[in-house]
Amino acid sequence: MNSERSPARFVLDGHELLPGISIDPVIFGFHEGQLKILLLEFRDTRLFALPGGFVHETENLDEAARRILADRTGLRDIYLEQFYVFGDRDRRDAETQRKIMVSTGTQLDDDHWLLRRFISIGYYALIDFTQATPTPDALSDSCTWYDLAELPPLIFDHSAIVRKALDTLQKNLDDKLVGLNLLPETFTMADLQRLYETILARPLQRTNFQRKMLSLGILERLEKKMSGGAHKAPYLYRFISPTTP
Amino acid sequence: MNSERSPARFVLDGHELLPGISIDPVIFGFHEGQLKILLLEFRDTRLFALPGGFVHETENLDEAARRILADRTGLRDIYLEQFYVFGDRDRRDAETQRKIMVSTGTQLDDDHWLLRRFISIGYYALIDFTQATPTPDALSDSCTWYDLAELPPLIFDHSAIVRKALDTLQKNLDDKLVGLNLLPETFTMADLQRLYETILARPLQRTNFQRKMLSLGILERLEKKMSGGAHKAPYLYRFISPTTP
Repeated sequence: MNSERSPARFVLDGHELLPGISIDPVIFGFHEGQLKILLLEFRDTRLFALPGGFVHETENLDEAARRILADRTGLRDIYLEQFYVFGDRDRRDAETQRKIMVSTGTQLDDDHWLLRRFISIGYYALIDFTQATPTPDALSDSCTWYDLAELPPLIFDHSAIVRKALDTLQKNLDDKLVGLNLLPETFTMADLQRLYETILARPLQRTNFQRKMLSLGILERLEKKMSGGAHKAPYLYRFISPTTP
Repeated sequence: MNSERSPARFVLDGHELLPGISIDPVIFGFHEGQLKILLLEFRDTRLFALPGGFVHETENLDEAARRILADRTGLRDIYLEQFYVFGDRDRRDAETQRKIMVSTGTQLDDDHWLLRRFISIGYYALIDFTQATPTPDALSDSCTWYDLAELPPLIFDHSAIVRKALDTLQKNLDDKLVGLNLLPETFTMADLQRLYETILARPLQRTNFQRKMLSLGILERLEKKMSGGAHKAPYLYRFISPTTP
Protein backbone atom coordinates (compact mmCIF):
# COMPACT_ATOMS: atom_id res chain seq x y z
CA MET A 1 0.00 0.00 0.00
CA ASN A 2 2.93 2.37 0.53
CA SER A 3 3.19 3.48 -3.06
CA GLU A 4 4.45 6.89 -1.82
CA ARG A 5 7.56 5.27 -0.31
CA SER A 6 9.23 4.48 -3.63
CA PRO A 7 9.68 7.46 -5.97
CA ALA A 8 9.88 5.34 -9.12
CA ARG A 9 6.70 3.42 -8.41
CA PHE A 10 4.99 6.58 -7.14
CA VAL A 11 5.65 8.38 -10.42
CA LEU A 12 4.64 5.41 -12.54
CA ASP A 13 1.53 4.73 -10.47
CA GLY A 14 -0.26 7.93 -11.41
CA HIS A 15 -2.82 5.89 -13.32
CA GLU A 16 -3.95 4.07 -10.15
CA LEU A 17 -4.68 7.37 -8.41
CA LEU A 18 -7.65 9.70 -8.70
CA PRO A 19 -6.47 12.38 -11.13
CA GLY A 20 -6.06 15.93 -9.90
CA ILE A 21 -6.85 15.28 -6.23
CA SER A 22 -4.44 15.44 -3.31
CA ILE A 23 -4.95 15.28 0.43
CA ASP A 24 -2.88 17.64 2.57
CA PRO A 25 -3.55 16.98 6.25
CA VAL A 26 -2.77 19.43 9.03
CA ILE A 27 -1.62 17.19 11.88
CA PHE A 28 -1.83 18.94 15.24
CA GLY A 29 0.07 17.86 18.32
CA PHE A 30 0.62 19.56 21.69
CA HIS A 31 3.90 19.37 23.63
CA GLU A 32 5.53 21.47 26.35
CA GLY A 33 2.84 24.10 26.13
CA GLN A 34 3.09 24.54 22.37
CA LEU A 35 0.67 23.65 19.60
CA LYS A 36 2.64 22.03 16.78
CA ILE A 37 2.08 20.61 13.31
CA LEU A 38 4.00 18.06 11.26
CA LEU A 39 5.91 19.26 8.18
CA LEU A 40 7.95 17.49 5.54
CA GLU A 41 11.19 18.97 4.22
CA PHE A 42 11.82 17.80 0.67
CA ARG A 43 15.28 16.42 -0.03
CA ASP A 44 18.01 18.99 -0.76
CA THR A 45 15.48 21.77 -1.39
CA ARG A 46 14.76 23.67 1.87
CA LEU A 47 11.13 23.39 0.72
CA PHE A 48 8.59 22.63 3.44
CA ALA A 49 5.11 21.20 2.99
CA LEU A 50 2.19 19.55 4.72
CA PRO A 51 2.67 15.76 4.67
CA GLY A 52 0.30 15.01 1.81
CA GLY A 53 -0.58 12.19 -0.52
CA PHE A 54 -2.96 11.02 -3.22
CA VAL A 55 -6.13 8.95 -3.35
CA HIS A 56 -6.04 5.39 -4.72
CA GLU A 57 -8.84 4.37 -7.09
CA THR A 58 -9.83 1.72 -4.55
CA GLU A 59 -10.14 4.04 -1.54
CA ASN A 60 -12.83 6.27 -0.12
CA LEU A 61 -11.48 9.77 0.59
CA ASP A 62 -11.47 9.18 4.36
CA GLU A 63 -9.59 5.90 3.90
CA ALA A 64 -6.93 7.67 1.86
CA ALA A 65 -6.55 10.33 4.57
CA ARG A 66 -6.16 7.61 7.26
CA ARG A 67 -3.54 5.76 5.20
CA ILE A 68 -1.54 8.97 4.66
CA LEU A 69 -1.71 9.80 8.38
CA ALA A 70 -0.69 6.28 9.37
CA ASP A 71 2.30 6.41 7.00
CA ARG A 72 3.51 9.70 8.52
CA THR A 73 2.75 9.08 12.22
CA GLY A 74 2.54 5.32 12.76
CA LEU A 75 -0.92 5.87 14.27
CA ARG A 76 -4.14 4.27 13.00
CA ASP A 77 -6.86 5.45 15.42
CA ILE A 78 -6.67 9.17 14.82
CA TYR A 79 -9.22 11.91 15.30
CA LEU A 80 -9.67 13.24 11.79
CA GLU A 81 -11.95 15.81 10.23
CA GLN A 82 -12.33 17.03 6.69
CA PHE A 83 -12.64 20.81 6.77
CA TYR A 84 -12.27 22.43 3.30
CA VAL A 85 -11.26 21.95 -0.32
CA PHE A 86 -8.63 24.20 -1.81
CA GLY A 87 -9.32 24.56 -5.51
CA ASP A 88 -7.96 27.81 -6.89
CA ARG A 89 -6.76 27.34 -10.45
CA ASP A 90 -3.21 28.57 -9.83
CA ARG A 91 -2.63 27.23 -6.32
CA ARG A 92 0.36 25.11 -7.40
CA ASP A 93 3.31 26.19 -9.51
CA ALA A 94 5.16 23.84 -11.84
CA GLU A 95 8.60 25.17 -10.91
CA THR A 96 8.22 24.11 -7.26
CA GLN A 97 6.87 20.72 -8.27
CA ARG A 98 9.88 20.17 -10.55
CA LYS A 99 12.32 21.13 -7.75
CA ILE A 100 10.70 18.60 -5.42
CA MET A 101 11.19 15.81 -7.96
CA VAL A 102 14.82 16.61 -8.83
CA SER A 103 16.14 14.70 -5.79
CA THR A 104 14.47 11.53 -7.09
CA GLY A 105 16.35 11.81 -10.38
CA THR A 106 13.04 12.29 -12.18
CA GLN A 107 12.64 14.90 -14.90
CA LEU A 108 8.97 15.75 -15.34
CA ASP A 109 7.76 16.13 -18.93
CA ASP A 110 5.56 19.15 -19.51
CA ASP A 111 2.45 16.96 -19.66
CA HIS A 112 3.36 14.86 -16.60
CA TRP A 113 0.35 14.24 -14.33
CA LEU A 114 2.15 15.83 -11.36
CA LEU A 115 2.25 19.14 -13.24
CA ARG A 116 -1.48 19.25 -13.92
CA ARG A 117 -3.96 21.13 -11.82
CA PHE A 118 -4.74 19.58 -8.43
CA ILE A 119 -7.36 20.34 -5.86
CA SER A 120 -6.36 19.60 -2.29
CA ILE A 121 -8.76 18.21 0.28
CA GLY A 122 -7.93 19.58 3.71
CA TYR A 123 -8.21 17.30 6.73
CA TYR A 124 -7.09 18.18 10.21
CA ALA A 125 -5.97 15.53 12.66
CA LEU A 126 -5.51 15.73 16.43
CA ILE A 127 -2.96 13.32 17.82
CA ASP A 128 -1.22 12.56 21.09
CA PHE A 129 2.27 13.94 20.55
CA THR A 130 3.82 11.29 22.79
CA GLN A 131 2.39 8.42 20.72
CA ALA A 132 3.40 9.55 17.21
CA THR A 133 6.50 8.43 15.29
CA PRO A 134 6.97 11.05 12.56
CA THR A 135 8.28 9.33 9.43
CA PRO A 136 9.45 11.07 6.23
CA ASP A 137 8.15 9.92 2.86
CA ALA A 138 10.31 8.92 -0.10
CA LEU A 139 10.76 12.52 -1.26
CA SER A 140 11.69 14.01 2.11
CA ASP A 141 14.68 14.36 4.38
CA SER A 142 12.56 14.85 7.45
CA CYS A 143 9.07 14.77 8.92
CA THR A 144 9.21 16.93 12.04
CA TRP A 145 7.08 18.89 14.48
CA TYR A 146 7.13 22.68 14.18
CA ASP A 147 5.65 25.18 16.61
CA LEU A 148 2.61 26.74 15.01
CA ALA A 149 3.97 30.16 15.98
CA GLU A 150 7.26 29.57 14.13
CA LEU A 151 6.49 27.80 10.88
CA PRO A 152 8.89 28.09 7.94
CA PRO A 153 7.43 29.34 4.63
CA LEU A 154 5.40 26.53 3.03
CA ILE A 155 5.03 25.59 -0.65
CA PHE A 156 1.93 26.30 -2.74
CA ASP A 157 -1.09 27.41 -0.65
CA HIS A 158 -0.16 25.24 2.33
CA SER A 159 0.06 28.24 4.69
CA ALA A 160 -3.55 29.10 3.83
CA ILE A 161 -4.51 25.49 4.49
CA VAL A 162 -2.92 25.69 7.95
CA ARG A 163 -4.73 28.98 8.72
CA LYS A 164 -8.10 27.54 7.70
CA ALA A 165 -7.46 24.40 9.79
CA LEU A 166 -6.67 26.54 12.81
CA ASP A 167 -9.80 28.66 12.24
CA THR A 168 -11.87 25.48 12.17
CA LEU A 169 -10.19 24.13 15.30
CA GLN A 170 -10.97 27.40 17.13
CA LYS A 171 -14.63 27.22 16.09
CA ASN A 172 -14.90 23.57 17.15
CA LEU A 173 -13.06 23.95 20.43
CA ASP A 174 -16.10 23.63 22.65
CA ASP A 175 -18.06 20.84 21.02
CA LYS A 176 -15.35 18.60 19.62
CA LEU A 177 -13.45 17.65 22.78
CA VAL A 178 -10.22 18.82 21.23
CA GLY A 179 -8.33 18.27 24.49
CA LEU A 180 -9.32 14.62 24.62
CA ASN A 181 -7.34 13.96 21.45
CA LEU A 182 -4.36 16.28 21.94
CA LEU A 183 -3.44 15.60 25.58
CA PRO A 184 -1.90 12.48 27.10
CA GLU A 185 -3.99 10.17 29.30
CA THR A 186 -3.55 12.36 32.41
CA PHE A 187 -2.87 16.08 32.64
CA THR A 188 -3.20 19.05 34.94
CA MET A 189 -5.77 21.83 34.67
CA ALA A 190 -2.87 24.13 33.72
CA ASP A 191 -1.98 21.81 30.80
CA LEU A 192 -5.57 21.96 29.56
CA GLN A 193 -5.73 25.73 29.91
CA ARG A 194 -2.43 26.16 28.08
CA LEU A 195 -3.77 24.02 25.21
CA TYR A 196 -6.88 26.19 24.91
CA GLU A 197 -4.76 29.34 25.08
CA THR A 198 -2.44 28.25 22.27
CA ILE A 199 -5.35 27.30 20.03
CA LEU A 200 -7.22 30.53 20.75
CA ALA A 201 -4.00 32.57 20.73
CA ARG A 202 -5.09 34.56 23.80
CA PRO A 203 -4.76 34.21 27.59
CA LEU A 204 -7.71 32.88 29.59
CA GLN A 205 -8.63 33.71 33.17
CA ARG A 206 -7.64 30.73 35.38
CA THR A 207 -10.58 30.45 37.78
CA ASN A 208 -13.18 31.01 35.05
CA PHE A 209 -11.52 28.42 32.85
CA GLN A 210 -11.41 25.85 35.64
CA ARG A 211 -15.04 26.46 36.59
CA LYS A 212 -16.19 26.08 32.99
CA MET A 213 -14.22 22.89 32.38
CA LEU A 214 -15.42 21.25 35.59
CA SER A 215 -19.02 22.21 34.83
CA LEU A 216 -18.95 20.21 31.58
CA GLY A 217 -18.83 16.93 33.48
CA ILE A 218 -16.19 15.45 31.21
CA LEU A 219 -13.22 15.44 33.60
CA GLU A 220 -12.36 12.95 36.33
CA ARG A 221 -10.06 14.19 39.12
CA LEU A 222 -7.25 11.77 40.05
CA GLU A 223 -4.42 11.91 42.61
CA LYS A 224 -2.08 14.88 42.88
CA LYS A 225 0.86 15.13 40.55
CA MET A 226 4.07 14.14 42.30
CA SER A 227 6.60 16.95 42.32
CA GLY A 228 8.75 18.89 44.78
CA GLY A 229 6.51 20.43 47.41
CA ALA A 230 3.55 18.05 47.80
CA HIS A 231 1.29 20.69 49.42
CA LYS A 232 1.46 22.73 46.19
CA ALA A 233 1.16 19.79 43.79
CA PRO A 234 -1.69 20.20 41.26
CA TYR A 235 -4.34 17.55 40.72
CA LEU A 236 -4.19 15.31 37.67
CA TYR A 237 -7.28 14.87 35.52
CA ARG A 238 -8.39 12.56 32.77
CA PHE A 239 -11.33 12.64 30.39
CA ILE A 240 -14.29 10.48 31.32
CA SER A 241 -15.19 9.78 27.65
CA PRO A 242 -13.40 6.99 25.78
CA THR A 243 -10.23 8.16 24.01
CA THR A 244 -11.27 7.08 20.53
CA PRO A 245 -13.90 9.21 18.82
CA MET B 1 -19.96 29.61 -21.00
CA ASN B 2 -23.18 27.55 -20.83
CA SER B 3 -21.61 24.30 -21.94
CA GLU B 4 -24.14 22.39 -19.79
CA ARG B 5 -27.01 23.67 -21.92
CA SER B 6 -26.16 21.60 -24.99
CA PRO B 7 -25.96 17.84 -24.38
CA ALA B 8 -23.79 17.14 -27.41
CA ARG B 9 -21.19 19.76 -26.53
CA PHE B 10 -21.38 18.87 -22.86
CA VAL B 11 -20.51 15.26 -23.61
CA LEU B 12 -17.74 16.18 -26.04
CA ASP B 13 -16.31 18.82 -23.71
CA GLY B 14 -15.15 16.40 -21.02
CA HIS B 15 -11.55 17.25 -21.78
CA GLU B 16 -12.06 20.93 -20.86
CA LEU B 17 -13.34 19.97 -17.43
CA LEU B 18 -11.45 18.90 -14.32
CA PRO B 19 -11.67 15.10 -14.37
CA GLY B 20 -13.62 13.32 -11.66
CA ILE B 21 -14.93 16.42 -9.88
CA SER B 22 -18.52 17.64 -9.76
CA ILE B 23 -20.24 20.36 -7.78
CA ASP B 24 -23.69 19.61 -6.38
CA PRO B 25 -25.09 22.69 -4.68
CA VAL B 26 -27.93 22.62 -2.17
CA ILE B 27 -29.88 25.80 -2.95
CA PHE B 28 -32.08 26.87 -0.06
CA GLY B 29 -35.05 29.20 -0.38
CA PHE B 30 -37.84 30.13 2.05
CA HIS B 31 -41.43 30.70 0.99
CA GLU B 32 -44.80 30.63 2.74
CA GLY B 33 -43.27 29.33 5.94
CA GLN B 34 -41.42 26.45 4.26
CA LEU B 35 -37.73 25.84 3.73
CA LYS B 36 -37.23 24.59 0.19
CA ILE B 37 -34.46 23.40 -2.10
CA LEU B 38 -34.11 23.33 -5.87
CA LEU B 39 -34.15 19.95 -7.64
CA LEU B 40 -33.77 18.91 -11.25
CA GLU B 41 -35.90 16.17 -12.75
CA PHE B 42 -34.05 14.45 -15.59
CA ARG B 43 -35.99 14.04 -18.81
CA ASP B 44 -38.35 11.08 -19.02
CA THR B 45 -36.77 9.35 -16.04
CA ARG B 46 -38.54 10.38 -12.80
CA LEU B 47 -34.99 10.74 -11.46
CA PHE B 48 -34.38 13.74 -9.21
CA ALA B 49 -31.03 15.34 -8.39
CA LEU B 50 -29.35 18.40 -6.99
CA PRO B 51 -28.70 20.91 -9.79
CA GLY B 52 -25.03 20.13 -10.32
CA GLY B 53 -22.30 20.79 -12.81
CA PHE B 54 -18.60 20.42 -13.51
CA VAL B 55 -15.52 22.60 -13.13
CA HIS B 56 -13.88 24.16 -16.17
CA GLU B 57 -10.08 24.02 -16.39
CA THR B 58 -10.08 27.82 -16.36
CA GLU B 59 -12.17 28.27 -13.21
CA ASN B 60 -11.46 28.35 -9.49
CA LEU B 61 -13.83 26.02 -7.62
CA ASP B 62 -15.84 28.93 -6.22
CA GLU B 63 -16.20 30.45 -9.69
CA ALA B 64 -17.55 27.17 -11.01
CA ALA B 65 -20.08 27.01 -8.17
CA ARG B 66 -21.22 30.60 -8.91
CA ARG B 67 -21.61 29.85 -12.62
CA ILE B 68 -23.68 26.73 -11.91
CA LEU B 69 -25.88 28.67 -9.47
CA ALA B 70 -26.34 31.54 -11.90
CA ASP B 71 -27.34 29.11 -14.66
CA ARG B 72 -30.00 27.50 -12.45
CA THR B 73 -31.38 30.58 -10.66
CA GLY B 74 -30.55 33.63 -12.77
CA LEU B 75 -28.87 35.15 -9.70
CA ARG B 76 -25.23 36.24 -9.53
CA ASP B 77 -24.79 37.71 -6.03
CA ILE B 78 -25.54 34.66 -3.97
CA TYR B 79 -24.55 33.73 -0.45
CA LEU B 80 -22.55 30.57 -1.00
CA GLU B 81 -20.53 28.32 1.27
CA GLN B 82 -18.52 25.20 0.60
CA PHE B 83 -19.31 22.67 3.32
CA TYR B 84 -18.04 19.16 2.52
CA VAL B 85 -16.60 16.83 -0.10
CA PHE B 86 -18.38 13.58 -0.82
CA GLY B 87 -15.82 11.05 -1.96
CA ASP B 88 -16.91 7.50 -1.23
CA ARG B 89 -15.70 5.15 -3.93
CA ASP B 90 -19.12 3.76 -4.85
CA ARG B 91 -21.24 6.87 -4.38
CA ARG B 92 -22.40 6.89 -8.02
CA ASP B 93 -23.78 3.97 -10.03
CA ALA B 94 -23.27 3.61 -13.77
CA GLU B 95 -26.82 2.42 -14.40
CA THR B 96 -28.34 5.68 -13.14
CA GLN B 97 -25.83 7.73 -15.12
CA ARG B 98 -26.74 5.83 -18.30
CA LYS B 99 -30.48 6.39 -17.70
CA ILE B 100 -29.90 10.12 -17.34
CA MET B 101 -28.10 10.27 -20.68
CA VAL B 102 -30.62 8.18 -22.66
CA SER B 103 -32.91 11.18 -23.22
CA THR B 104 -30.06 12.98 -25.00
CA GLY B 105 -29.71 10.11 -27.46
CA THR B 106 -26.23 9.44 -26.11
CA GLN B 107 -25.04 5.90 -25.47
CA LEU B 108 -22.13 5.96 -23.00
CA ASP B 109 -19.23 3.62 -23.77
CA ASP B 110 -17.97 1.68 -20.78
CA ASP B 111 -14.90 3.90 -20.51
CA HIS B 112 -16.81 7.20 -20.96
CA TRP B 113 -15.61 9.90 -18.56
CA LEU B 114 -19.12 10.30 -17.11
CA LEU B 115 -18.99 6.71 -15.88
CA ARG B 116 -15.73 7.13 -13.98
CA ARG B 117 -15.47 7.84 -10.30
CA PHE B 118 -16.42 11.40 -9.27
CA ILE B 119 -16.04 13.27 -6.04
CA SER B 120 -18.69 15.90 -5.40
CA ILE B 121 -17.94 19.20 -3.73
CA GLY B 122 -20.91 20.32 -1.67
CA TYR B 123 -21.85 24.00 -1.56
CA TYR B 124 -24.92 25.42 0.04
CA ALA B 125 -26.52 28.61 -1.20
CA LEU B 126 -29.07 30.85 0.49
CA ILE B 127 -31.23 32.80 -1.89
CA ASP B 128 -34.22 35.08 -1.83
CA PHE B 129 -37.00 32.86 -3.16
CA THR B 130 -38.80 35.80 -4.73
CA GLN B 131 -35.78 36.81 -6.82
CA ALA B 132 -34.85 33.41 -8.33
CA THR B 133 -35.87 32.13 -11.75
CA PRO B 134 -35.37 28.35 -11.60
CA THR B 135 -34.15 27.12 -14.99
CA PRO B 136 -33.68 23.48 -16.04
CA ASP B 137 -30.43 22.36 -17.65
CA ALA B 138 -30.14 20.54 -20.99
CA LEU B 139 -30.77 17.13 -19.42
CA SER B 140 -33.81 18.09 -17.35
CA ASP B 141 -37.53 18.58 -17.73
CA SER B 142 -37.75 20.85 -14.73
CA CYS B 143 -35.86 22.78 -12.08
CA THR B 144 -38.32 23.30 -9.24
CA TRP B 145 -38.57 24.12 -5.53
CA TYR B 146 -39.42 21.23 -3.20
CA ASP B 147 -40.31 21.48 0.47
CA LEU B 148 -37.43 20.09 2.48
CA ALA B 149 -39.93 18.02 4.44
CA GLU B 150 -41.28 16.37 1.28
CA LEU B 151 -38.35 15.63 -1.02
CA PRO B 152 -38.62 12.85 -3.59
CA PRO B 153 -35.90 10.15 -3.53
CA LEU B 154 -32.67 11.56 -5.00
CA ILE B 155 -30.03 9.87 -7.14
CA PHE B 156 -26.61 8.75 -5.90
CA ASP B 157 -25.75 10.15 -2.44
CA HIS B 158 -27.63 13.42 -3.00
CA SER B 159 -29.93 12.85 0.00
CA ALA B 160 -26.85 12.58 2.22
CA ILE B 161 -25.54 15.81 0.69
CA VAL B 162 -28.82 17.58 1.57
CA ARG B 163 -28.71 16.25 5.15
CA LYS B 164 -25.13 17.43 5.63
CA ALA B 165 -26.00 20.86 4.19
CA LEU B 166 -28.90 21.18 6.61
CA ASP B 167 -26.67 20.10 9.53
CA THR B 168 -24.20 22.81 8.57
CA LEU B 169 -26.95 25.41 8.22
CA GLN B 170 -28.23 24.56 11.71
CA LYS B 171 -24.73 24.93 13.19
CA ASN B 172 -24.19 28.25 11.40
CA LEU B 173 -27.61 29.68 12.20
CA ASP B 174 -26.43 32.16 14.79
CA ASP B 175 -23.24 33.54 13.27
CA LYS B 176 -23.96 33.47 9.55
CA LEU B 177 -27.01 35.74 9.36
CA VAL B 178 -28.95 33.08 7.53
CA GLY B 179 -32.14 35.12 7.67
CA LEU B 180 -30.52 38.01 5.87
CA ASN B 181 -30.08 35.87 2.78
CA LEU B 182 -33.28 33.83 2.84
CA LEU B 183 -35.88 36.49 3.62
CA PRO B 184 -37.16 39.30 1.39
CA GLU B 185 -36.18 42.91 2.11
CA THR B 186 -38.83 43.34 4.81
CA PHE B 187 -40.47 40.72 7.02
CA THR B 188 -42.32 40.27 10.28
CA MET B 189 -40.86 38.77 13.45
CA ALA B 190 -43.18 35.81 12.88
CA ASP B 191 -41.61 35.26 9.42
CA LEU B 192 -38.15 35.24 10.97
CA GLN B 193 -39.19 32.87 13.74
CA ARG B 194 -40.85 30.53 11.26
CA LEU B 195 -37.61 30.45 9.22
CA TYR B 196 -35.56 29.50 12.28
CA GLU B 197 -38.13 26.89 13.25
CA THR B 198 -38.05 25.19 9.85
CA ILE B 199 -34.26 25.09 9.80
CA LEU B 200 -34.03 23.78 13.36
CA ALA B 201 -37.07 21.51 12.87
CA ARG B 202 -38.48 22.45 16.29
CA PRO B 203 -40.81 25.12 17.69
CA LEU B 204 -39.30 28.16 19.44
CA GLN B 205 -40.82 30.19 22.24
CA ARG B 206 -42.09 33.48 20.79
CA THR B 207 -41.08 36.05 23.42
CA ASN B 208 -37.64 34.49 23.97
CA PHE B 209 -37.01 34.41 20.24
CA GLN B 210 -38.05 38.05 19.81
CA ARG B 211 -35.91 39.20 22.74
CA LYS B 212 -32.86 37.34 21.42
CA MET B 213 -33.24 38.66 17.87
CA LEU B 214 -33.70 42.26 19.01
CA SER B 215 -30.69 41.98 21.36
CA LEU B 216 -28.39 41.20 18.41
CA GLY B 217 -28.70 44.75 17.10
CA ILE B 218 -29.11 43.59 13.50
CA LEU B 219 -32.79 44.44 12.95
CA GLU B 220 -34.36 47.77 12.12
CA ARG B 221 -38.06 48.18 12.99
CA LEU B 222 -40.16 49.77 10.22
CA GLU B 223 -43.84 50.64 9.91
CA LYS B 224 -46.61 48.17 10.68
CA LYS B 225 -47.63 45.68 8.04
CA MET B 226 -50.87 46.69 6.37
CA SER B 227 -53.57 44.10 6.84
CA GLY B 228 -57.16 43.80 8.06
CA GLY B 229 -57.27 45.04 11.64
CA ALA B 230 -54.63 47.77 11.95
CA HIS B 231 -54.49 47.57 15.76
CA LYS B 232 -53.26 43.96 15.49
CA ALA B 233 -50.93 44.49 12.53
CA PRO B 234 -47.36 43.25 13.20
CA TYR B 235 -44.30 45.44 12.71
CA LEU B 236 -42.12 44.96 9.68
CA TYR B 237 -38.36 44.62 10.11
CA ARG B 238 -35.33 44.68 7.90
CA PHE B 239 -31.70 43.77 8.46
CA ILE B 240 -29.36 46.67 9.16
CA SER B 241 -26.36 44.99 7.46
CA PRO B 242 -25.95 45.23 3.69
CA THR B 243 -27.73 42.45 1.81
CA THR B 244 -24.66 41.13 0.01
CA PRO B 245 -22.14 39.19 2.08
